[in-house]
Amino acid sequence: MTAKSMMPYVEGNSAIRAMFEEGARMAALYGKENVYDFSLGNPSVPAPDEVNQAIHDILEEEHTLLVHGYNQSNSGYEDVRRTVAEHLNELHGTNFTSENIIMTVGAASGLNVAIKALVDPGEEILAFAPYFVEYGNYAKNHGAQLRAVPADTVTFQPNLDAMKEMITAKTRAVIINSPNNPTGVVYSEDTIKKLAAALKEKQEELGTEIYIISDEPYRELAYDGVNVPYVTKYYDNTVVGYSWSKSLSLPGERIGYLVFPSEMADFDNAIQAANIANRVLGYVNAPTLIQRTAARCIKCKADIEAYDRNRKALYEGLTDAGYECVFPEGAFYLFVKSPIDDDVEFCAKAKEHHILVVPGKSFACPGYVRIAYCVSHDTIVNSMPAFAELMKEIKEDKE
Amino acid sequence: MTAKSMMPYVEGNSAIRAMFEEGARMAALYGKENVYDFSLGNPSVPAPDEVNQAIHDILEEEHTLLVHGYNQSNSGYEDVRRTVAEHLNELHGTNFTSENIIMTVGAASGLNVAIKALVDPGEEILAFAPYFVEYGNYAKNHGAQLRAVPADTVTFQPNLDAMKEMITAKTRAVIINSPNNPTGVVYSEDTIKKLAAALKEKQEELGTEIYIISDEPYRELAYDGVNVPYVTKYYDNTVVGYSWSKSLSLPGERIGYLVFPSEMADFDNAIQAANIANRVLGYVNAPTLIQRTAARCIKCKADIEAYDRNRKALYEGLTDAGYECVFPEGAFYLFVKSPIDDDVEFCAKAKEHHILVVPGKSFACPGYVRIAYCVSHDTIVNSMPAFAELMKEIKEDKE
Repeated sequence: MTAKSMMPYVEGNSAIRAMFEEGARMAALYGKENVYDFSLGNPSVPAPDEVNQAIHDILEEEHTLLVHGYNQSNSGYEDVRRTVAEHLNELHGTNFTSENIIMTVGAASGLNVAIKALVDPGEEILAFAPYFVEYGNYAKNHGAQLRAVPADTVTFQPNLDAMKEMITAKTRAVIINSPNNPTGVVYSEDTIKKLAAALKEKQEELGTEIYIISDEPYRELAYDGVNVPYVTKYYDNTVVGYSWSKSLSLPGERIGYLVFPSEMADFDNAIQAANIANRVLGYVNAPTLIQRTAARCIKCKADIEAYDRNRKALYEGLTDAGYECVFPEGAFYLFVKSPIDDDVEFCAKAKEHHILVVPGKSFACPGYVRIAYCVSHDTIVNSMPAFAELMKEIKEDKE
Repeated sequence: MTAKSMMPYVEGNSAIRAMFEEGARMAALYGKENVYDFSLGNPSVPAPDEVNQAIHDILEEEHTLLVHGYNQSNSGYEDVRRTVAEHLNELHGTNFTSENIIMTVGAASGLNVAIKALVDPGEEILAFAPYFVEYGNYAKNHGAQLRAVPADTVTFQPNLDAMKEMITAKTRAVIINSPNNPTGVVYSEDTIKKLAAALKEKQEELGTEIYIISDEPYRELAYDGVNVPYVTKYYDNTVVGYSWSKSLSLPGERIGYLVFPSEMADFDNAIQAANIANRVLGYVNAPTLIQRTAARCIKCKADIEAYDRNRKALYEGLTDAGYECVFPEGAFYLFVKSPIDDDVEFCAKAKEHHILVVPGKSFACPGYVRIAYCVSHDTIVNSMPAFAELMKEIKEDKE
C-alpha cells in the first residue's frame, strides 16, 4: 500500500488539483482570454536573452566533462560559488568567499538542506503568517514542527511580540520571506533590526542558538527603489536561501544557493553538515550547466518593469473597485482582504466571474486571498470589469 | 548549534574527505599521471555530441517560457514522459504511458521519492550486500531502516535464502541494483524470477505488500550482449529508478525518472503520492531544459565501448597478477577480493603504491575492494606494474 504518512497529502492535494483542472476546464469552455487565472506564481516574463546566449557559449567554450560532470564538492563548482560570493559582497558590502556558498536545486531544496543541517527532530521552527504553505512540509520532512506566528494584518510586517511569546528552548529557527509571498510586503530595516534584537535576547535568555532562515526568491522583485536589507549584516545566525527562479525566470531549472556566513555559531560543522545534507537528501549537486549559466548571468535580470506595471494597474483597479489591501512593495502578489468573512467562499464566488485566486487559508491567514500578477497585462486590464461586478454582487448580497 | 542528528555524518564524512584530499595531495606531489585513482564512479567518457546539439536545437526551436518554466505537473513534461514510456515499451514490450513516469532530479531523488511514497516511518527496507552506502541514508531520511542481506560472495547474485529469513511484516521494500555497483554483476533472469516468486510468497504469507525498488543507473552499461531483465515484467509491485548519469554521461545535470507500473498495488494513490513527494521533498520537478534534452536523445548512448575495453584490460591484468574477482558483466566496477583480510588496511597499502580504491566495508561487504574503471585507458595500463608490485609485497609479508 501507499505510505500511510502520505495519504493526508494525497487527500489534501485533490482540492488544489481540482482547482487547476477547473481552470483548464473553464479555459476550454469560455476561451483562455475570458478566464482570469491569478492562481499561480509562475513567471510570465521570459528569461533574459543573456541566459540562452550563456548556455550556447558554455557549450562552445567549456569542456563537456566539466559542464555535465559531477561536481568535486556537493556544494557546487568552486568558481561559480566564488562568483556568487563576490557579487553579494559588491551589492551588500559583505565578506563572503566560496566557502560560504552552497549551490542548491532551487530554493526549495536549499530550505530543506538548511533545516536538515540545523534543526533536530522534535525541535520547532517559527514562520510568520501568512507564509508559503510548503514550509510546514519541509519542517516535517526532518521531524521538526512548524508553528505559525499570527499575522499583523495592519502592516503585514512580522508580529514580533507574538513571536517572542512563542519562542521556547525547542525553537531552533525562524523562517522569514521578504519580499513576501503572499503579501508583497518588504520587511523594513527597522523590522530586521528589531527581529535581530529580539532573537539575540532570546538566545541569551535560553542559552540556545536560534537561526533565521531567510527565504529570498523575490529579492530582485522590489519596486520604487525600496531597500531589502541583507539579513546576515544584522544577525550572525542567519542562513540565506536564494533562487534564480524569479530574477532570471528559470523556475523549471531548479537553481539557487544557500549562504552560511562564517560568523554563525559552529560554522565549520554547519557548512559541512549542509554540504552532506545536499548529498544525503538526494539533490547531490545543483544542475551543472545551469550553475555555470547563472554565474555568467550574475548581473542580469528578467524584465521586472513588466511586473511593476501590473502591480500598479492591479492595485489601483482593485482599490478603485472597493477592495482593500496593503500596498505591495515587492514580489508579484497582492494580498486582498476578502469582502466576505469566508475566503474560501469568496474564491468560489470569484470563480463564477471567471476569476481564479487562492484563499488566504492556504497561507495560514484566512479572511484574505492571494492574487498573483505575474500574468499578461491584458489579463489584468480585462479582468477589471469582472472584479467590479463581483464586488457589486457581494454588496448586494449583504444588503 | 549544528543539528546533532547530522554530526555522525559530519564525523563519518571526514574519512572519505581525507581520502579525496590525499588523492589531490598525491597528484600534486607525484604528478597526476603517477597516481592511479580508481576511487570514483564519475564517467570518464564525454556526453555524446547529440546532447549539446539537442540543447542548441531546443533553445532555437522551443519557447523559452516552456523550456525554463515550471512544469504543469511535478512529474514533468507530459510529452517527455510519453517519449520515455514509448521508448521503454519498444525496448521491453511493456505497456507504459506518460501516467506511469515521473521525471526526477537524478536517480538519488527518484529513490527518495519512491521511499517517501511507499514506506512509512518505522518500516524496513532490505538491500543485498554489497550495496551503495547512500541507500541507508535515503531510508533514514524517511524514518525507515535499511537492513543488509548478507552477500553471496561466490556469485554476488542476491542471497535469496537469507532475504526470506529477514522478511517480516515490517518489510515494505527490497532495493536491487543491476548491473551492480560495486560488483559489476548483472542479475540473471533466473535470479529475478526466483526473487519475484519469493516475494509473492512472502506477501501472501504476511498479507502485506513488498515493493521491489530497482535502481538502474547502469542499465545500458552491460557487455557481451548480456540480458538485463526488466523487472516490472516479473513482479507487479516494482518501481524502477533510472538515471541518464551514466548512459549519457550527464551526472552533474541530475536527470532521471521513476516508473510506477499500473499493475502495482494501490496504483492511483501511489503515483499521486510520488508526484507530491517530488514537490514536498524540495525537488519540485526535474530540471526542465535537460528533461527536454534527454527526450531528444532517448536513443543515444555514450561510448560504452571505452568502458568495455577498460573492463577487459583491468580484469585480465589483475587476475594475471594474482588478484581474485568475479567477472563483471556490467557497470564500470570490479569488486576484488582483498589479498589480506582487512580491506581497509589493503587500501592503505595500495595507496603507498599510488593506487586509490574503496574498501568493501563502505558497501557493507568487508574483505573486498571496489575498483572503478571509468578512468582513462592509460591509467589502467600504467597502473598494472603497481598492482603487481603490491601483490608481491603482500605475498612476501605473508611468508
